[in-house]
Amino acid sequence: MQKNIYAELISIGDEILYGQTLDTNSHWISGELDKLGIRVKRKVTVADTESVILEAIAEAEVNADIILITGGLGPTKDDLTKPCLAKYFNSEMYVDQQVLAELKERFARRGRELNALNSGQAELPKKCKVVHNKYGTAPGMWFEKDEKILVSMPGVPSEMKYMMEDTVLPELKKRFSTPVLIHQMVKTVGIPESILAEKLEDWENSLPGEIKLAYLPGLNQVKLRLTASGEDKVHLQQLLEAEVNKLYKQVGKYIYGTDEGNLAQKVGALLKKHGLTIACAESCTGGHLSQLLTANSGSSEYYRGSIVPYHNELKINLLGVKSETIEQNGAVSEATVIEMAEKVRKLFGADIGVATSGIAGPTGGTEEKPVGTVWVALADEHETQTKLFNFSFDRESNIDIAANSVLNLVRKKLSSK
Amino acid sequence: MQKNIYAELISIGDEILYGQTLDTNSHWISGELDKLGIRVKRKVTVADTESVILEAIAEAEVNADIILITGGLGPTKDDLTKPCLAKYFNSEMYVDQQVLAELKERFARRGRELNALNSGQAELPKKCKVVHNKYGTAPGMWFEKDEKILVSMPGVPSEMKYMMEDTVLPELKKRFSTPVLIHQMVKTVGIPESILAEKLEDWENSLPGEIKLAYLPGLNQVKLRLTASGEDKVHLQQLLEAEVNKLYKQVGKYIYGTDEGNLAQKVGALLKKHGLTIACAESCTGGHLSQLLTANSGSSEYYRGSIVPYHNELKINLLGVKSETIEQNGAVSEATVIEMAEKVRKLFGADIGVATSGIAGPTGGTEEKPVGTVWVALADEHETQTKLFNFSFDRESNIDIAANSVLNLVRKKLSSK
Repeated sequence: MQKNIYAELISIGDEILYGQTLDTNSHWISGELDKLGIRVKRKVTVADTESVILEAIAEAEVNADIILITGGLGPTKDDLTKPCLAKYFNSEMYVDQQVLAELKERFARRGRELNALNSGQAELPKKCKVVHNKYGTAPGMWFEKDEKILVSMPGVPSEMKYMMEDTVLPELKKRFSTPVLIHQMVKTVGIPESILAEKLEDWENSLPGEIKLAYLPGLNQVKLRLTASGEDKVHLQQLLEAEVNKLYKQVGKYIYGTDEGNLAQKVGALLKKHGLTIACAESCTGGHLSQLLTANSGSSEYYRGSIVPYHNELKINLLGVKSETIEQNGAVSEATVIEMAEKVRKLFGADIGVATSGIAGPTGGTEEKPVGTVWVALADEHETQTKLFNFSFDRESNIDIAANSVLNLVRKKLSSK
Repeated sequence: MQKNIYAELISIGDEILYGQTLDTNSHWISGELDKLGIRVKRKVTVADTESVILEAIAEAEVNADIILITGGLGPTKDDLTKPCLAKYFNSEMYVDQQVLAELKERFARRGRELNALNSGQAELPKKCKVVHNKYGTAPGMWFEKDEKILVSMPGVPSEMKYMMEDTVLPELKKRFSTPVLIHQMVKTVGIPESILAEKLEDWENSLPGEIKLAYLPGLNQVKLRLTASGEDKVHLQQLLEAEVNKLYKQVGKYIYGTDEGNLAQKVGALLKKHGLTIACAESCTGGHLSQLLTANSGSSEYYRGSIVPYHNELKINLLGVKSETIEQNGAVSEATVIEMAEKVRKLFGADIGVATSGIAGPTGGTEEKPVGTVWVALADEHETQTKLFNFSFDRESNIDIAANSVLNLVRKKLSSK
């Protein structure tokens, strides 16, 4: 039985703690280590302060086999990672002639000369191996102590990624033989987490010991993550496949995918598969539905276009909704949204027309039609379907969930074909 | 002299450690605490495992005055934060009748009944105060022990933000008197960071000691953050005002705001101020421009509507662009985008018409018109302006920067009125 290999990630930088920089580095590193079967046990972000950096490294050394540090390697005074590591490993400094030569060449290419701050980048602790930095001036540092590995990399994402891909990941892969770890996502839409969990309780309780389940809830989507770990990759893949099949049998109508794509991409793929086109009449979603569809490269194959007639007279004059319909039922009504979907389908020459009309909030609600009331419709050559929702989120979320609810209508329509 | 108040943030969730979910919560919380003068000392992300959660809380209690925890409050078995906190604070559980009533009401509104998993959300440790959750089913928990505060919130960003804004931040502001810390944002658009920094070098070097400067670069926007700290609020405000005035004198034409609003909100406010309305014809931006404008509550006052004519025959038949224009110049051309802006203005009865046409990529580029080529236009009753861009980002970023470039055209037009 192989033992688990644990990593701890340390991000260093005041700008992360002050909320000025979003730390995407540790997110990316986590995903890459996960692919190797190395488990990230903890992530820590600390300030550019010697004492807390040293404390974080000492704590990590207790917890983890591999410690990956990002940040604090710049040339200026507030960057402390290198002196801290020299102190921690009790190492003298030296000037690395190869790094210095590369720095000189890098500056010469830009017609500049090295200043003292820059040439200081070639000064390194004797106890580390240099990790090459193709995209920047700060070399990475690889330390080893009592079978533990510590690597320090710059915080600039492109530099860090280069070092990880060029040096760190290949080296870790060589060193550690990790247990096999396979993740399988099963993405559902249109069913609340608690109801899904209730439906799946028996299935969850009968999962084989190699598989762990996690619910990852979003706005109107719940992702199920199955993680299989063990020794035998083929066996684990078979186990996962069997469980995914059981899920399809039990809650298949809510499942929209088992891979990377989002709901809009799934809908795009379904439209393409059936050779169909779509057009949108958006009122309350204000362009967001169109944006989701056109975010996919190649969407012009199935996306015809949209109209956002925010005002009633535009719904009437441009889209062709009858004025009586709006007068008698209001703009947020089943009758109006039906006409919107049917008219946009014809006007844009699409196979499928979809429409939204609702009150996204926070203002505009009434007792009869409170904020969150959304009518959506889908029209094709045979029929027009509608659905009424009552969302209870903030404006941004109401708009997002409304747009995704339309996409789910399309998905269900096309999945049953 | 007031003492510094320290916070530690703990994010709980395997999905963050596995690189499946990017932790944006702790980034947002950091920024909000910073505005109150509360310093985030450390951020930690740990797994959904009892022992490491308890360890993280115990460590945080040593380091910080305030501990804010996100995640692990869902209704399913893998959510462990609540039982961990009950154990940590050695607290019995009870059913909170008010939370239960709210849950029932929330479900009744959607025509559903509570199941056992949902009603379990009303079960809470006796030693906590309930933090109200408007947008979800998991209540937050506020604990106090030896003058330290610990608050547990859900990981869903909209729910966490609501609790922070409604309860946590106002309460922390009342409790703690921190040194005066004033942030002043100065937001620029359309000038690269390095050029801006060069123009501002002398100004930066002459900043008074109370003021610290940070460059926060975005896609085509650079935010300057001035942070004044000291004892005397009025004095600091005067210092900041003087520096902002200097900035306006030096780089005023790039500055679009000094407050919270984004560029679309700024444009909305300008349209409202001048009593003008806008309509959009979007090709390459595919609805994103409309989405940015309609994300603002109350946008119907100035936003008329949009058309997304993704295909050339729709640009001709629906929008009214002359077929010769497209035949002779192509859809991505100055002549086409001019007609698009002028036609959408008339068709939607708006004061201002804007249009985009370009190649967002990654496919569709040619030697003459590579990926990233974007034409934008702005038409009003007097004239039509155009601008050509050559962006070099991925599809999503090209679309976003194109939409924001149109907004910047409108801003400049209206700012000079």
